[in-house]
Amino acid sequence: MRNINVGIIGFGNIGTGVIDALLKKRAYLRNRLGASINLLKVCDKDLRSKRLVKVNKRILTNNVNDILNNPKIDIVIELIGGIKAARNIIIQALKNKKHVITANKALLSIYKKSLFKEAEQNNVELRFEASVAGGVPIIKALREGLVANKVNSIYGIVNGTCNYILSEMTNNGTSFNDALKDAQKKGYAEKRPAMDIEGLDSAHKLAIFASLSFGIDVRLKDIYIEGITNISDDDISYADSWGYLIKLLAIAKKVGRELEVRVHPTLIPKKHPLASVEGNFNAIFLNTDMLGEALFYGKGAGSVPTASAVVSDIIDISRSILGKSSVTLPSIIYDNHVERIKKKDDFYTRYYIHFTAIDKPGVLAKISRILSEYKISIAFVSQKARRREKLVPIVMMTHTAQESAFSQALKKIDALSVIKRKSVVIRLEEGL
Amino acid sequence: MRNINVGIIGFGNIGTGVIDALLKKRAYLRNRLGASINLLKVCDKDLRSKRLVKVNKRILTNNVNDILNNPKIDIVIELIGGIKAARNIIIQALKNKKHVITANKALLSIYKKSLFKEAEQNNVELRFEASVAGGVPIIKALREGLVANKVNSIYGIVNGTCNYILSEMTNNGTSFNDALKDAQKKGYAEKRPAMDIEGLDSAHKLAIFASLSFGIDVRLKDIYIEGITNISDDDISYADSWGYLIKLLAIAKKVGRELEVRVHPTLIPKKHPLASVEGNFNAIFLNTDMLGEALFYGKGAGSVPTASAVVSDIIDISRSILGKSSVTLPSIIYDNHVERIKKKDDFYTRYYIHFTAIDKPGVLAKISRILSEYKISIAFVSQKARRREKLVPIVMMTHTAQESAFSQALKKIDALSVIKRKSVVIRLEEGL
Repeated sequence: MRNINVGIIGFGNIGTGVIDALLKKRAYLRNRLGASINLLKVCDKDLRSKRLVKVNKRILTNNVNDILNNPKIDIVIELIGGIKAARNIIIQALKNKKHVITANKALLSIYKKSLFKEAEQNNVELRFEASVAGGVPIIKALREGLVANKVNSIYGIVNGTCNYILSEMTNNGTSFNDALKDAQKKGYAEKRPAMDIEGLDSAHKLAIFASLSFGIDVRLKDIYIEGITNISDDDISYADSWGYLIKLLAIAKKVGRELEVRVHPTLIPKKHPLASVEGNFNAIFLNTDMLGEALFYGKGAGSVPTASAVVSDIIDISRSILGKSSVTLPSIIYDNHVERIKKKDDFYTRYYIHFTAIDKPGVLAKISRILSEYKISIAFVSQKARRREKLVPIVMMTHTAQESAFSQALKKIDALSVIKRKSVVIRLEEGL
Repeated sequence: MRNINVGIIGFGNIGTGVIDALLKKRAYLRNRLGASINLLKVCDKDLRSKRLVKVNKRILTNNVNDILNNPKIDIVIELIGGIKAARNIIIQALKNKKHVITANKALLSIYKKSLFKEAEQNNVELRFEASVAGGVPIIKALREGLVANKVNSIYGIVNGTCNYILSEMTNNGTSFNDALKDAQKKGYAEKRPAMDIEGLDSAHKLAIFASLSFGIDVRLKDIYIEGITNISDDDISYADSWGYLIKLLAIAKKVGRELEVRVHPTLIPKKHPLASVEGNFNAIFLNTDMLGEALFYGKGAGSVPTASAVVSDIIDISRSILGKSSVTLPSIIYDNHVERIKKKDDFYTRYYIHFTAIDKPGVLAKISRILSEYKISIAFVSQKARRREKLVPIVMMTHTAQESAFSQALKKIDALSVIKRKSVVIRLEEGL
């Protein structure tokens, strides 16, 4: 029986999960594949720190070339994260005709096009199931299970930190700051949480799944990104009273022959399947020409769920090694069913707006006048009599409007002397 | 460029969907696979009826051997349904070294073990993505995406007819009979709906996905089956007042080294992801050792979603034909992580019971006495003062109890002179 030899670069949290799975499930996986997965080398700069899994010392190395130049190794698994070193490692592994698996969404969001090309030129595979939604096999679903489908739109809850914070605010009335602290305490948020709460991590994942689904190279700079730091518990309770929840969504949506790609807090009807995605879970909701609506839901982070995705990539690659098959589905097929990425100014959505105004007559009239100037019509408005330092919240929902008109109108309204704070804007997706 | 030649047997609703997809998406699929899918023959007894898709007359035949014995055909797609003829066709195709794709859950639920063996002996594949949850790629997820996972439990909403009826009853207060009529009018229920509403169709699918997930051959006769015909709008509103919805679930659950397999109406907390699965949608909720909880949701029936699943099987098989690969993951791996199927008497669940009793003092005391005799404790009870022909509903929820004790107790209670109708029992799953 042939062995498949694997080298892992990066013995951190995810690396530990993958190694643990490969060691503990050796027989289980051999039974499925008909071959053994052999962990030949593990590389890390730090070989001293204690890990949660015990590894034979002889396979440990701090020299990456022990893996990259090892003729026995079939599959290199890059789990160091970061951009530059990871990119060099992957390119070198591919050039050495090794299959590569990575969970590095930040790297792929920037360099996927050239990296996939490098893999293709060397006739090896570059797999990345773990890069989006952790253990949820969404990449496989998009590439294989739904291979016959043209995707119309995808809405992803792909950042567990944000979803945890918003769930806490929604279910327990917690403030943003307290929910963030709680998430940090529980290990769901980093000490420096900016990458998550400002939407960048979601954008990394969006760049990957949008490229796959729409056959166009979506780059990070193409994506409109807005995080959840402006959302207050007030907004959540206003939304609630109108039948909505607030989630941070990563959205890719075909409109005509253009693609909209954006990350922002979004109002979702409470009965929508995405509304029940709570805490640190991820979900991808999509709409395709054949299947219609579909949802994939599960743990999007954590060493064990992520290891589940990495191991499924190992098994897939192993099947093609053992079958000497060179026929795998390409990662991105540039087939022009989308022509270009839409500019933010051309988005059309509905808007929830939370103004903070002086409590005196005529304020609403002033606001409405400006909105109507820009052809933005109001669906409903709520002016609560709650006074706080003589300021009142005015909360409204618009009908569908163009982003450019909306942002001009908002700028003008926020400049009014009666408006006392920067207004909070949350988009509402008509398609959901 | 090599062609992959396909023969379809059965030009009905699903057949039409598959043919339409293969013809319309020829270029799209070629672009993905690097080879053309060539529809070589379509066989049906009835070649006269008008279909929704136009097929070149030269490829039509009413002789199944034009496909089974055609040396050019690589993949045979069986879409005639039913047991005997379909089984013969599949066996003959496999013996002739043709890969086979089927959507026939009734057939697989009975003969999967021997059919998979036949495929293995002939070194060809027998694929069946469309047999469970239509277009939702759940078979692929279980076999490949979650290949490293051991499944603890699966809960499926896999019958759109039942789910549509229950959703109508829940959302609009419709009676069972009216909801069924409505479903029939909309084409979501057959004229003879027994197979669906009595739970058999769900059991067919359960036999398949439970076998796959637990590595044991689950046969139809192993499954405890109960349909939705006893559920009244009253039960739905009592459940609602306690925070639950009622869904027909197909359940496979490992308890110790035994497997429970059952289909029955089930109380689900309103906030559970399965609760938002409405109308004719399907969903599979699972719990595994690595991923934890996950949900897959989408259209479980209809010619186009089903065609999506069939085409994904065609592409997968084509990849292995083109790569001359013989390494595919086996369908069921009998690995003994489950030892046997549990008997119904040994189930442990909680029970919702709806008694219909004479309105006089002491009835509840009588009921409680019998329950306590069998060591069944009551979690809460509601005795509404609503009188109808002097009968009152007594509705209660028990704590976890053993099925054998429960059914004996219920028999005794239903025999009381104060109880006037057969009591309605709905199970509650603690794991959800």
